[in-house]
Amino acid sequence: MLKIPPHQVAGHQAGNGKLGPLVDESGRFYKPLQGDERGSNEVKFYESFSSNTKIPEHISKFFPIFYGTQLVEASDGSGLKSHLILHDLVLGRVNPSIVDIKIGSRTWAPESTEEYMQKCLKKDRETSSLPLGFRLSGIQIYGNKESGYWKPERTSIQNLSAEEVKLMLKKFVSSNASTDLDLEPDCAFAATVYGGSTGILSQLLELKAWFEDQTMYHFYSCSILMIFDKEHASEGRNPGAIIKLIDFAHVIEGRGVIDHNFLGGLCSLIKFISEVLTAPNEHTTEVSSKPDHQNFILSDNGAN
Amino acid sequence: MLKIPPHQVAGHQAGNGKLGPLVDESGRFYKPLQGDERGSNEVKFYESFSSNTKIPEHISKFFPIFYGTQLVEASDGSGLKSHLILHDLVLGRVNPSIVDIKIGSRTWAPESTEEYMQKCLKKDRETSSLPLGFRLSGIQIYGNKESGYWKPERTSIQNLSAEEVKLMLKKFVSSNASTDLDLEPDCAFAATVYGGSTGILSQLLELKAWFEDQTMYHFYSCSILMIFDKEHASEGRNPGAIIKLIDFAHVIEGRGVIDHNFLGGLCSLIKFISEVLTAPNEHTTEVSSKPDHQNFILSDNGAN
Repeated sequence: MLKIPPHQVAGHQAGNGKLGPLVDESGRFYKPLQGDERGSNEVKFYESFSSNTKIPEHISKFFPIFYGTQLVEASDGSGLKSHLILHDLVLGRVNPSIVDIKIGSRTWAPESTEEYMQKCLKKDRETSSLPLGFRLSGIQIYGNKESGYWKPERTSIQNLSAEEVKLMLKKFVSSNASTDLDLEPDCAFAATVYGGSTGILSQLLELKAWFEDQTMYHFYSCSILMIFDKEHASEGRNPGAIIKLIDFAHVIEGRGVIDHNFLGGLCSLIKFISEVLTAPNEHTTEVSSKPDHQNFILSDNGAN
Repeated sequence: MLKIPPHQVAGHQAGNGKLGPLVDESGRFYKPLQGDERGSNEVKFYESFSSNTKIPEHISKFFPIFYGTQLVEASDGSGLKSHLILHDLVLGRVNPSIVDIKIGSRTWAPESTEEYMQKCLKKDRETSSLPLGFRLSGIQIYGNKESGYWKPERTSIQNLSAEEVKLMLKKFVSSNASTDLDLEPDCAFAATVYGGSTGILSQLLELKAWFEDQTMYHFYSCSILMIFDKEHASEGRNPGAIIKLIDFAHVIEGRGVIDHNFLGGLCSLIKFISEVLTAPNEHTTEVSSKPDHQNFILSDNGAN
């Protein structure tokens, strides 16, 4: 019995006759393979990665478990289609808060066709990818039993400014985020979700150390999911904060070079999370109006 | 008495009636200001940076000392022109080996005009900037009194592969680099130039730590110079290995975001230098033919 995943925040979604991922009750996630090179590329990546003995365990835990591919009745009613079978990342969670962050200021590989490159470049320039090194692709923040989830339109969160991204990362770990949007986020769960030896910042730093060294894969257009359980956090229990990398349709071989594009974006995200953690109550918008160094007001960078 | 700098490896060069930098005998370097926004932008950067009290001393030492601007007889005979006055970086060196490395896979700022962006993007794709996160812009390697310098054509070193860049970084610190080009470089000076607590790798790591934190400036199209004195190294003396950042015509304000583009390229360069240091005698070309993980042979990444 396959059904539509209740907690998907980005990517193609099933429902209304559309093609999208499905889940079963045993905790497996079925992702339909895109018919073109993207589908076969993602299968190749999972096959390579899951059999690669050079991946340390403290890194492979950041990736979905891969069970192979399988022909499954597609969600759009088009009949049997090949699906990736992955471990369902939100299995066992009741009301997970989730954010999907696409990493890298460039979402296209150097070998891309001119057409594909220009298409991605346009999107990277229109969103926060180019200035910030990443963009928010989707988010759901659980409020409480009455309010349920706050799930802003995806297009509205892709082109946020630095200050707006920081505000969103504060709301993500606040107890008052979805109940009153005008309220300054209280960052009630920043310390337990982002902080601590098993929190999200620690996990991001572990991942960063690997990216400073690994030259096997370059992860274009790949996302980091951050997931935690706010109800657990509210009750003083472990919020189960985790990061997971997803979406490998545009992974290419590293050929002896580190993935400087992913690493740069990851370092930028780490800096944002660190700032929320060290100054959770800093009033975000006021600070933004003060440039770091008043004497340095440059003209537009349009010179040749 | 101004003269043409004897050790310039990249950028516009004076001589034959062309406009380029000049030096005097007291150790000052005169860089003509480009007439357009680039010139005024570079002055603004130097004024901001040199008066910025938030720059720690262990970082400001990586930048040229700025003495102001001055009207000076231009090298192309066009009369008085405004020049940046900087400390001459090779002052007191007899036969310095120098490499100029332009950092970042992207040499244009997000706010660039469409025309300038496309021009830079084309160059970034044609050179090693896009795949490696940096490109060699110029190099001179001192051999000995008989052979003098080996100074390959600039255009020939900008689009090297990962293995070729590694070979060049080995030659840079080898005693046999310029005497016989077919000889495997001996990396005789790798440990003293790249290694040690005051070597180039340590300096690059200090710089990296700053870039992981600073959100004041973004350094587009900026270069790192690496300089040392091979004769000193040969004689067992301190080779005086240093790094310096130069070329700030395309620096923009950071606006609260780290310079993920520069940082990514810097981390890539650090990985190359680390590998030369830890495995100086590894035969470069043989290793290159073995992919990191044999099972992972991806098709071209041209999907949409």
